[in-house]
Amino acid sequence: MSRSIVIRNALILAQPSAGQPVFGQVEIRYGRIASVAAGEHASDAEEIIDAAGCALLPGLVNTHAHSHSSLTRGSAEGAALDAWLAAIESEQSQLTEEQEYIAALATYAEALLSGTTAILDMCLHPRAAYRAAREIGIRAVIAPYVADSKPFTPTLAETTSLLDLAAAEDDRVRVFVGLHDLESCSDAQIAEGAALARRFATGLHLHCSETEGQVARTRSRTGVTPVARLGALRALGKRTVLAHCVWVDDADRRLLAETGTHVAHCPHANLKLGSGVAPVVDLRRRGVNVALGTDGAKANNRLDPFDVMKFASLVQKGVLRDPAVLPPIEILDMATRCGAAALDIPAGALVPGLAADLILVRLDDFHTQPMLPDNAAANLVHAARGSDVVLTMVAGEILTRSGRLVSERWDSLADDSRRVGLELIAAQSLT
Amino acid sequence: MSRSIVIRNALILAQPSAGQPVFGQVEIRYGRIASVAAGEHASDAEEIIDAAGCALLPGLVNTHAHSHSSLTRGSAEGAALDAWLAAIESEQSQLTEEQEYIAALATYAEALLSGTTAILDMCLHPRAAYRAAREIGIRAVIAPYVADSKPFTPTLAETTSLLDLAAAEDDRVRVFVGLHDLESCSDAQIAEGAALARRFATGLHLHCSETEGQVARTRSRTGVTPVARLGALRALGKRTVLAHCVWVDDADRRLLAETGTHVAHCPHANLKLGSGVAPVVDLRRRGVNVALGTDGAKANNRLDPFDVMKFASLVQKGVLRDPAVLPPIEILDMATRCGAAALDIPAGALVPGLAADLILVRLDDFHTQPMLPDNAAANLVHAARGSDVVLTMVAGEILTRSGRLVSERWDSLADDSRRVGLELIAAQSLT
Repeated sequence: MSRSIVIRNALILAQPSAGQPVFGQVEIRYGRIASVAAGEHASDAEEIIDAAGCALLPGLVNTHAHSHSSLTRGSAEGAALDAWLAAIESEQSQLTEEQEYIAALATYAEALLSGTTAILDMCLHPRAAYRAAREIGIRAVIAPYVADSKPFTPTLAETTSLLDLAAAEDDRVRVFVGLHDLESCSDAQIAEGAALARRFATGLHLHCSETEGQVARTRSRTGVTPVARLGALRALGKRTVLAHCVWVDDADRRLLAETGTHVAHCPHANLKLGSGVAPVVDLRRRGVNVALGTDGAKANNRLDPFDVMKFASLVQKGVLRDPAVLPPIEILDMATRCGAAALDIPAGALVPGLAADLILVRLDDFHTQPMLPDNAAANLVHAARGSDVVLTMVAGEILTRSGRLVSERWDSLADDSRRVGLELIAAQSLT
Repeated sequence: MSRSIVIRNALILAQPSAGQPVFGQVEIRYGRIASVAAGEHASDAEEIIDAAGCALLPGLVNTHAHSHSSLTRGSAEGAALDAWLAAIESEQSQLTEEQEYIAALATYAEALLSGTTAILDMCLHPRAAYRAAREIGIRAVIAPYVADSKPFTPTLAETTSLLDLAAAEDDRVRVFVGLHDLESCSDAQIAEGAALARRFATGLHLHCSETEGQVARTRSRTGVTPVARLGALRALGKRTVLAHCVWVDDADRRLLAETGTHVAHCPHANLKLGSGVAPVVDLRRRGVNVALGTDGAKANNRLDPFDVMKFASLVQKGVLRDPAVLPPIEILDMATRCGAAALDIPAGALVPGLAADLILVRLDDFHTQPMLPDNAAANLVHAARGSDVVLTMVAGEILTRSGRLVSERWDSLADDSRRVGLELIAAQSLT
């Protein structure tokens, strides 16, 4: 890894929601942004990259994913959430640690190649995912999929041991406490998990209020909404990231805002599973930090943050019948700064001192041109796709270039993950 | 162009809605499908293509586009339809024939590279678009953008002269009568255009009932809905393709079904301009042929038929809160057979005798694997993107390969179209 890199001639969106893009150069030293400047300047950097025709922006942050879903994408289609969770449970329960390792590598490879520099992975074999993330180099938050009603899931004791391990190692891969949701975890487990997160001063990640039925069942069991119930169990706050929040009422929204709880909006899964459309515009208006997520590959079916941005943008405009809501710079802000805030990572903007997590995106192809400061945000959100990412850098390290992982170590990964996926599907068909 | 080509080792979706995909080979002779067979067979074809890792399916059909919109994508964001039409009118009125020629070439290049083999283009300079389509080789329907309230648009007399020209030439590029809509055309012009289409036994293309406001204004002016008004003007029927139909009531839907009128569903534009969500599932249930369209690049912002399929699929599931509606094979059917029916072209399926309009799509990359007959349709619709198209063939002619246009003639097209786009934007900013 070069200790110093300069990227020149790029159209720079240093902080997408603050200020007009400029043509210029960014200097990276020792893994961090050293300078951002308009125009071209002399440099003694070890590597100089000419980024003509490309936008340069902070790496995109995926705040909700499940790596264990990637190897069998395209199966279990057409079902609503409850039936779908039941349909995939057998596969989940049979997944081995080694299979999850390959699944996590493939997930992170897909993510990096599409411009994702940081990902939250709620996974079934957290040690395998942790190892995969460290090896491939993506910035990751590993959130073990804990649920005491599902015997195949990891325990809070395993989470604790992984938290201990992570505390002793570098900070590119971190660990959150993960709790599947209020229906698959007991109230005692939710409270215990929240206490564990507080003890380690780390994050807490849960699914919440994804379907109307879930909300009704929690109301019937506890008398209050899932958001209120999580509040009562001390599971909300500035370190909590809730996936979905499609069905949140006025009081829920106020509580999310007051507690500083983050929301991971996953438009694909909410649409594909027929759950509904999250009140993103209203949540943002109330001050809730709404970040973006792909959810698992079976619910999307592609872990492409550009696709997430386009769906997040257009679906809100269409459903609210207001084309002015969520302009492109706000969507880019959600995908970068808001995502970094939710995962509490030192990135999300190209600002001196922050980690050099960034991407170069071609904007001079037929489907993205013309490239101009005025329309770059619109075309990044509405026209670009993950395949337009020509370089992905995490902490100053170039991990993908021209649509390929840089390290030869991963040359056979696509073949390996395909083979494991076919094995998993064959095992399902036989049982 | 080879007179005979065999494509081997592909996962073939010959007619996406009829029958399971099979691994096999397709033989093309003299521009048409000669045979489709499971397994591998000896062949004396001039060219043999190994398509391992790819799905082979009919080319995708885009039933509503505007090539004049492609060079300035990313401008005029955030406006609702009426304001948006006003905002782009100055640019439209200044577009020259030569600029439209470049815009049409760039549009068709983008379309071909993303897996589109046939496109309906409602354009401002139809002779330029007609020439561009013939030169680049895409199957096209040129529908002049006729509107007597807009002095810069082509006339029905020009449409007639282009219909005469097209009748004398090959049938890969054809001409429909295009009429912008009931508000920008007089009733007399609508009736005259419909009569012209009947006289030439060709199609008729209009925008219809895109926004609630349009419907209210037509009701207020005529006492009936736009669909009913078009019926009264003899503009509905088996040769009519109506773009949008977002706001159609029960009687409208019945009339569309009874008359055999086709609908071009453009989910991106309807969402992005805040128009709403078309009742696609109900229209199909009533027997209306609903095909898919990208609309212009400013309303999308990418002419990617895979993106259209994914939006068409997920938005209906989410808004109807029913994940079982529009399963992937139905979406593929809309993008192929239904599109071919709407445009009345001899393609849309890989069946002996039909034109060899087909595409090869990689399904072995991280974001699309694993490739299996059971999940191919799901991953083509929900996971693949236009950049996964590795070969596009129209009438037996290979037009794109590995993400590039085959003919060297187009090597400078991306640069040319970028230059013209920047000129157009600069001219706007100065006026």
